[in-house]
Amino acid sequence: MTANNTAYADLMAFQRQTEALAQVAGRLGWDQETMMPRGAAEQRGEEMAAMEGILHARRTDPRIGEWLALAKAADEVAAAQLRHIRRAYDRTRRIPADLAQELARVTSLAQGIWAEARANDRVADFLPTLTEVIRLKRHEAVALAEDGDPYDALLDDYEPGATQDSIAEMFDRMRPRLVKLREAILASSVQPAKLSGHFGTEGQLRLARRLATAFGYDWNRGRLDLAVHPFSSGSGNDARITTRVMETDPFNCFYSTIHEVGHACYELGIDGDYLLTPLGNGVSMGVHESQSRIYENQIGRSRAFTGWMHGEMVDRFGDFGVTDADAFYATVNRVQPGYIRTEADEVHYNLHVMMRFDLERALIRGDLAVRDLEAAWNDRFRADFGVAVDRPAHGMLQDVHWSCGLFGYFPTYSLGNVYAGCLHKALRADVPDLDDHLGRGETQVATEWLRDRVQRHGGLYEPREVIRRACGFVPDEGPLLDYLEGKFTEIYRL
Amino acid sequence: MTANNTAYADLMAFQRQTEALAQVAGRLGWDQETMMPRGAAEQRGEEMAAMEGILHARRTDPRIGEWLALAKAADEVAAAQLRHIRRAYDRTRRIPADLAQELARVTSLAQGIWAEARANDRVADFLPTLTEVIRLKRHEAVALAEDGDPYDALLDDYEPGATQDSIAEMFDRMRPRLVKLREAILASSVQPAKLSGHFGTEGQLRLARRLATAFGYDWNRGRLDLAVHPFSSGSGNDARITTRVMETDPFNCFYSTIHEVGHACYELGIDGDYLLTPLGNGVSMGVHESQSRIYENQIGRSRAFTGWMHGEMVDRFGDFGVTDADAFYATVNRVQPGYIRTEADEVHYNLHVMMRFDLERALIRGDLAVRDLEAAWNDRFRADFGVAVDRPAHGMLQDVHWSCGLFGYFPTYSLGNVYAGCLHKALRADVPDLDDHLGRGETQVATEWLRDRVQRHGGLYEPREVIRRACGFVPDEGPLLDYLEGKFTEIYRL
Repeated sequence: MTANNTAYADLMAFQRQTEALAQVAGRLGWDQETMMPRGAAEQRGEEMAAMEGILHARRTDPRIGEWLALAKAADEVAAAQLRHIRRAYDRTRRIPADLAQELARVTSLAQGIWAEARANDRVADFLPTLTEVIRLKRHEAVALAEDGDPYDALLDDYEPGATQDSIAEMFDRMRPRLVKLREAILASSVQPAKLSGHFGTEGQLRLARRLATAFGYDWNRGRLDLAVHPFSSGSGNDARITTRVMETDPFNCFYSTIHEVGHACYELGIDGDYLLTPLGNGVSMGVHESQSRIYENQIGRSRAFTGWMHGEMVDRFGDFGVTDADAFYATVNRVQPGYIRTEADEVHYNLHVMMRFDLERALIRGDLAVRDLEAAWNDRFRADFGVAVDRPAHGMLQDVHWSCGLFGYFPTYSLGNVYAGCLHKALRADVPDLDDHLGRGETQVATEWLRDRVQRHGGLYEPREVIRRACGFVPDEGPLLDYLEGKFTEIYRL
Repeated sequence: MTANNTAYADLMAFQRQTEALAQVAGRLGWDQETMMPRGAAEQRGEEMAAMEGILHARRTDPRIGEWLALAKAADEVAAAQLRHIRRAYDRTRRIPADLAQELARVTSLAQGIWAEARANDRVADFLPTLTEVIRLKRHEAVALAEDGDPYDALLDDYEPGATQDSIAEMFDRMRPRLVKLREAILASSVQPAKLSGHFGTEGQLRLARRLATAFGYDWNRGRLDLAVHPFSSGSGNDARITTRVMETDPFNCFYSTIHEVGHACYELGIDGDYLLTPLGNGVSMGVHESQSRIYENQIGRSRAFTGWMHGEMVDRFGDFGVTDADAFYATVNRVQPGYIRTEADEVHYNLHVMMRFDLERALIRGDLAVRDLEAAWNDRFRADFGVAVDRPAHGMLQDVHWSCGLFGYFPTYSLGNVYAGCLHKALRADVPDLDDHLGRGETQVATEWLRDRVQRHGGLYEPREVIRRACGFVPDEGPLLDYLEGKFTEIYRL
């Protein structure tokens, strides 16, 4: 073995243990949201901080710099591994160890405080903690940015290569078409029925499991639990999902489940050769979201798949007031200004994201004080959605993200929608009889296409590049908007 | 601050993070037995090995030696902290890092292989793994023992201060009285009815939760789940328990639960000042077991408590064929040679342990080959219990311990019984009206006595010393044997 190869092997062996420890930290996070007894919250904060200290020490270990200087990539895969390691090394070294540990400790505690504040609708209970999280995140952002923009530095953690300017420009192009579509829909004389009635928790969870199976979720390498805010967690051979149940709104449970299955299938679909390496994780949040959103929306909310799903619901819940598959399709896709992002229809969803994007940029810049956030949220919501926020749990307390310190994360949801639009266009071109499969509740032809084109590559290509290769064209917002206009023009007879 | 105090503070700060990481590793173990999808087993092995590597590096960090050389204890508590740290440091440095990691990886995998072999009654599927575990444990034992005895070195990890000779002598004194009692019982014309019928899983779990509550389990700092082999896990403010359900044998579920509650209450009862320090853990497995066994047996299987429990069972399961509280007491305490240690009555229990103690000493010495273990087990079982083992799951595959590498652990179960006997004698002397409380399902007066005398001290005193202080006399097997002879002479009218 040459010295260069030795350096590469040593680096990868070291990295493998770091990846394993990162999986452990992730599992702790899962536990905290699903299983942990409440009285353990403070102790868990120390445990998370200790893990974060270990991970930070490994990620900034000077030996990485020495190995990187010597290691030579033998092929494309090795080159991608080194690119990921170098990028993470450069970023992490900029964050002081005590700041990393303090962030881990504070955000671990903050999640419990947020959940409590949200349950009690008490913004004031969350503000001191949020203030502290933002103070620490601004420190982190400035440290990461060096001479660049602090918010861009945070964004880059979730979506390498993206900038707030490129996203703001994309949002500027999307907004007029979405607003026009929204206005036409709200003015339409056609208005699909809203689902009503009561759907028992057990029945919902059974169908949620059936849906996960239909989308190819590998139960041997995952599990489904309940959480306040649905999420997926873990890579490699342990990618778990959570959902939530509201007995008057089963779609919340079903589509949250399909969404998280999309995330988990991405992780589970990555080439097994990349296990516990930098390539063994989804390449960015935007690409991750493209998988969850195409599972949830372009497939899960299609006319063909909802036709099958309608039969499943009738089998389980009897006559629930929507007897016709076309009417069910319209009900599933009913557009209405709502408070909650995760429950939003496809037309409103990106408007929710744009609002958070602007607010969190202002928080990080320091242009918006935390004490003014609720008013800013509520003003903006009324302006964009034409409705007043009725309670904090429906407003600024709805999302877990800020309590976790995930600033710069929200815009990746819209990037994911845009990528999902592109992938869907390419998928339809490649699989003309897709609807025949979906109509039988079989998603395999679509999920295998996605596994082959996107998922198996893990971190091999840069985010936009993996989408470009999968689609055969440079991704932009056009296909998503075309799809939305076509779909809702038909449903609402615009 | 003097240099000595600085050294102590630095050492304790370092140790606190190590304790937090150890809690994380423990939680991973809990997850593996309760929640982990099966397909994650191999990856989990790497994750556990990485955690073990981190813990081993910290526990052998040369700075500990430097701090220990400088640190001076300001009081009894600090002296005990230093004693624990010094002892652990000396022990851990003797184990090479690669051996520690390999043990973590192999035992993590071995547990899944054992569970599968046990489910399929296939000894052969487990033997290669067990051979490897024993090979590694013998390496570890020799490294730990230096010039001493390898098995003693393993034992010392679970019961500081105990030796196989002292335990063998104690077993030699116990065996004749236990055998005589067993023979008298089996020859008695009085034979309590065996519980029969079917007890639904949901009803069992509800009563198990009620029993945990009755014994003061703090649900805010713990939770109950199902596992193949019941266990408790975690210290400080997160001490979880597991149980199992067999629909024809509800006592298995109920007394496993009470047993694990005893373990968990010990951890939860430790002085909060010791959180995430060496004193913040139960001091030894023997003392741990004394708590679980006195909860389970001397309290949980007493005439007074079973009288209350009988009413709870009638309320939940209706007429289940045992209508009288005295008969129920006799049924709960029914003595019968059975295959399974964890289901054994109080008379047979220590005979199960003695057998494992002899077999595992022979395995570690190398006097017994793994391929001969099943025959040795079955021969010994027939000799001691007068019954032939009918299937491996009822024989050498029944316990998880050896798959985890827990050699030297079994005798602590009997030490725990002996300590429980001593504590029970002292408790009865201090609380003459104990049965009045237990008869109402109230254990508080006993559990608070135990918390005050034993649990709150955590690791402050050496194992035998904490029992001696709690009881006011030097512990030996006498009180346990007196209690067993008294109890069963009455039930069986000997």
